[in-house]
Amino acid sequence: MPSTTTFLDELFDKGLLIDTGVDGLYGRSGLFEEIGDRFQALVTRYGAEDEPEVVRFPPAMSRQVFEKSGYMKSFPQLAGTVHCFCGSPADHVSLLQTIEAKGDWTEGQKASEIVLTPAACYPLYPTAAKRGQLPADGLLFDLMSYCFRHEPSKDPARQQMFRMREFVRMGTPDQVTEFRAKWLERGQALIGELGLPLKLDVANDPFFGRTGKMLAVNQRDQRLKFELLIAIESEENPTACLSFNYHQDHFGKTFELESSDGEVAHTACVGFGHERVILALLKHHGTDVKTWPQSVRKALWG
Amino acid sequence: MPSTTTFLDELFDKGLLIDTGVDGLYGRSGLFEEIGDRFQALVTRYGAEDEPEVVRFPPAMSRQVFEKSGYMKSFPQLAGTVHCFCGSPADHVSLLQTIEAKGDWTEGQKASEIVLTPAACYPLYPTAAKRGQLPADGLLFDLMSYCFRHEPSKDPARQQMFRMREFVRMGTPDQVTEFRAKWLERGQALIGELGLPLKLDVANDPFFGRTGKMLAVNQRDQRLKFELLIAIESEENPTACLSFNYHQDHFGKTFELESSDGEVAHTACVGFGHERVILALLKHHGTDVKTWPQSVRKALWG
Repeated sequence: MPSTTTFLDELFDKGLLIDTGVDGLYGRSGLFEEIGDRFQALVTRYGAEDEPEVVRFPPAMSRQVFEKSGYMKSFPQLAGTVHCFCGSPADHVSLLQTIEAKGDWTEGQKASEIVLTPAACYPLYPTAAKRGQLPADGLLFDLMSYCFRHEPSKDPARQQMFRMREFVRMGTPDQVTEFRAKWLERGQALIGELGLPLKLDVANDPFFGRTGKMLAVNQRDQRLKFELLIAIESEENPTACLSFNYHQDHFGKTFELESSDGEVAHTACVGFGHERVILALLKHHGTDVKTWPQSVRKALWG
Repeated sequence: MPSTTTFLDELFDKGLLIDTGVDGLYGRSGLFEEIGDRFQALVTRYGAEDEPEVVRFPPAMSRQVFEKSGYMKSFPQLAGTVHCFCGSPADHVSLLQTIEAKGDWTEGQKASEIVLTPAACYPLYPTAAKRGQLPADGLLFDLMSYCFRHEPSKDPARQQMFRMREFVRMGTPDQVTEFRAKWLERGQALIGELGLPLKLDVANDPFFGRTGKMLAVNQRDQRLKFELLIAIESEENPTACLSFNYHQDHFGKTFELESSDGEVAHTACVGFGHERVILALLKHHGTDVKTWPQSVRKALWG
């Protein structure tokens, strides 16, 4: 393989990812999916003793909930709204003429009541709040969903549509910080078992604009976000494969989540970048799974 | 349960589906997903001897490919385009003011290069064509994806975001019609094993407008589409849970797929409505899985 070939080219060549003509939007082979399924089973085993409630949302969510979440305030550049054709047969004729003439036919599309899910946990908060006050020991959920972020890139670890596994804890500050501390340990043990070199670091979300810079500094200063980084596309800039987030009362306030003590609930989550961990395995152990270290094969296939 | 309670209400009450505030957009419980996983494993067993190539695409696809497919000609009312914010920090300030004032902030969103996937097989055709002429025995793929159709409804079997499993055959007319005939038999055997009362019928796609009516009549006359129907929301109007489609040379022509004999390739597919089969099981056997008929439990859990 010549050194000018990128990792993405290699993944296309081996058929592990499939080019769709759009950067960051790829098909996956059966082998890619099989590695991912085994990784998810390992994550489930690490979290099993906590007995999380499994919930799965589709890859789109209510626009009303999305607006309430404040996502457009912090990350407008990453969001995707879903738009539809609501016209008459006459409008349809003119739409087809525009497509035929290679014009912009999308201008007439109207925003629907849904948007693409930006992180697996967003649809959860309002549905959890509907159950009423949290029980004394809080709540713990196990989520997974395709997510969308509009950041076209040739880095295979930065996809526009990717899957995120998440555990979300809701409760008192003590309950949720204890949860995060436990997963900081577990996450390192889990990635260690997969034979991947990792680095843990304080991090910040990609807040938009000048106000965003201040939010990012504040988030780092308060150590609200940690990331477990693994080198995939670059040694110098390793990729966040797991993230450990303490939201304080942000979602509790926004969605009126109440702890059993009557206070605004705090929340925290641990997120696993599904494709990123698969890519880290392929990068560090090679694209031929049969030659992976025995210990890694055992962790995944038992 | 009072007779005025709908099936959707019952699914919400039992926690099998989770209300998101948008008709046709629901969360799923762990049990709902577990039934679905077992159903998919059964489908895999039925198709295993054909050794299909497993490929998975994300729930969105290239807009360019989508435009080429002709979907907007036939089903404009069902499609969903993904739009993004591409503005400056100043635009962002005005966007937030609009949201704050409950105005329509979505007008400034610009169409991105992707659209939601309307059926699992759409992203496949151009990537298969890139491989060059089909081999002598054609190709067979195993797909599954979340799909989007903009048809808000209180019928839980008509969701806006739902999963579709598909096998897609590409080859000569004989190869693809033989594939469809085989799955017509297999599909009935499989649903029979699940103890569900089924009806097989000629069908048509929901083509838009007046021209669409003619396309629908033509599709029925040529018996290009069959559906396996199971009563879910209504006895009188059973729901299509599997569909068996012969596309003739439609996708072959559109995406320049060539058979080994140099002719335009023909294609056919069998599609399984993932949520619909789960809902049919819950409707006919009840929401308490432990009380399902022994034979059905054996087919799913072994």
